[in-house]
Amino acid sequence: MEKYIVVAVGGNAFQTKNERGSPESYWEHARRSADFLVRIVEDGYRVAITHGNGPQVGIIAEWMLAGKSAKGLPVMTLDIAGAMSQGWLGYLLQQTIYNKLIEKGLLGKSVKGVITVITQTVVDRGDPAFMNPTKFIGPWYSEEEAKKLAKEHGWVVKPDPRGGWRRVVPSPNPTRQIEIDAIKKLLSEGYIVIASGGGGIPVYVDEEGKLRGVEAVIDKDLAGERLASAIGAEIFMILTDIDKVYLNYGTPRQKAIDVMTVSEAKKYYEEGHFKPGSMGPKVLAAIRFVEDGGKEAIIAHLFQAYEALRGKAGTRIVPG
Amino acid sequence: MEKYIVVAVGGNAFQTKNERGSPESYWEHARRSADFLVRIVEDGYRVAITHGNGPQVGIIAEWMLAGKSAKGLPVMTLDIAGAMSQGWLGYLLQQTIYNKLIEKGLLGKSVKGVITVITQTVVDRGDPAFMNPTKFIGPWYSEEEAKKLAKEHGWVVKPDPRGGWRRVVPSPNPTRQIEIDAIKKLLSEGYIVIASGGGGIPVYVDEEGKLRGVEAVIDKDLAGERLASAIGAEIFMILTDIDKVYLNYGTPRQKAIDVMTVSEAKKYYEEGHFKPGSMGPKVLAAIRFVEDGGKEAIIAHLFQAYEALRGKAGTRIVPG
Repeated sequence: MEKYIVVAVGGNAFQTKNERGSPESYWEHARRSADFLVRIVEDGYRVAITHGNGPQVGIIAEWMLAGKSAKGLPVMTLDIAGAMSQGWLGYLLQQTIYNKLIEKGLLGKSVKGVITVITQTVVDRGDPAFMNPTKFIGPWYSEEEAKKLAKEHGWVVKPDPRGGWRRVVPSPNPTRQIEIDAIKKLLSEGYIVIASGGGGIPVYVDEEGKLRGVEAVIDKDLAGERLASAIGAEIFMILTDIDKVYLNYGTPRQKAIDVMTVSEAKKYYEEGHFKPGSMGPKVLAAIRFVEDGGKEAIIAHLFQAYEALRGKAGTRIVPG
Repeated sequence: MEKYIVVAVGGNAFQTKNERGSPESYWEHARRSADFLVRIVEDGYRVAITHGNGPQVGIIAEWMLAGKSAKGLPVMTLDIAGAMSQGWLGYLLQQTIYNKLIEKGLLGKSVKGVITVITQTVVDRGDPAFMNPTKFIGPWYSEEEAKKLAKEHGWVVKPDPRGGWRRVVPSPNPTRQIEIDAIKKLLSEGYIVIASGGGGIPVYVDEEGKLRGVEAVIDKDLAGERLASAIGAEIFMILTDIDKVYLNYGTPRQKAIDVMTVSEAKKYYEEGHFKPGSMGPKVLAAIRFVEDGGKEAIIAHLFQAYEALRGKAGTRIVPG
């Protein structure tokens, strides 16, 4: 029996924090990430990879607005920007992983190839997130500019606690990936599949059963969980820039967790140990995965992926 | 036995000529294109779709340069811009075709789904095109601006016969798509596959067998031919905004062609009947397809795709 694993990589797979990134630095980061990801393949797993896209969608949004100001160029909606980011980051990963497989002599043997699938993720039109957009995206503006842009583009804008005004969009709960059957098929045939990038392009299903893109962003870990559960993955692994999950993180009483059961994780989650913008959705995704029947969720540093898979690094969330 | 067809759609699948296009107009055009494309599926063909990306890569390039001028944002290379355009246009087609299949009750029956595969197309590092870049892309500049940008970004710039200066890039010959086996697999499983968008992301294979992106553009019809030949398609269909191939096009002696053999097509091609920037590469791609063993290549107007498939519209290029 083949063992399936879904790996979700964060922003540090592509860039250094708060850095804009040149093409060269993107390639350098992607090559390093590919190095860690291919070690998982060597262990005999069939691997699906998903990734974040926050900084890149932000850059695309800024490019478009600058193009509009300077030359009256069109501004595309957030679903299209998401699709563009899937092409961009999928390409970087698919080429660097392919090259690493070549280097290790694995291509055509344990792995047939590396495929990026442009993925649409279904959200519920009635999701309460649509009533209360909370996710800041794109550049910072003055209040006046922000309100002008809001009128022009139909945006919602709010003051950012870090200063200035920004666009806010809803971050609804992902329910399923439209392309899931094809993703499963490719995995079972021996391809490494890159899918659900940036959580997937957010779409809802209308009364006629048709898909409609929406201006929203989806949490990539929560969407990765949907992917992992749907393909029946044994392991769902979330790779980030922190080595473990901590209780009382950032306080003198901070304590790293090696293993926790779902019940423990839920208790800590409810006690507020995990911040909404950082560890919160990761732990929530891990809880959901194990509750949906997964064997084990792992949260670890990208550079310790291989050790974490062997229980020697990171935090494991297990049934119980 | 399943019959395979590869359909290459041109710019008119997404926008009106010389128009920048709003998100709404992109959706409107894509919906109309999906209408014509799904009729081919109804006829029992397994369909792979490829598309151009010239205007969109131009827009992406302009966005990036405006973002750089206004805010010092990074400028990505042409291969990454190509990957972004595959995500963008693939998403539009995949959603509108899915919706049309829903409307007609075909989804889950004759067709399992619609998948966009981010595709890398291999070119030969020694292709003479690299010595003599000829393809104009992106915005027009003054000579001074153009030369400044050339220095900054390592571009080649040339005066455009239509006025002004522009960036020129090589347009090398496509040899094969890296993702071809997965594309074939998905087609055989019953998926409509969108692949090799914009001719594919241009890559070459280095001494170690690794892929490297290059700053080039690939003709989408010539790349579509490689796709069609590799999957053993019966028919390669090129859909454009002209109803047929003409001899002496645009002169008083202009004459439409209903059918021509490969030998006739080659003779006309050599006589200079087909312009390099327009019908030339289409006829060349058709010739190559039939010479590679294809049954029939068809060049027709997008709106007459279905009639052309029945021999009632367009131009057929056949063996002989």
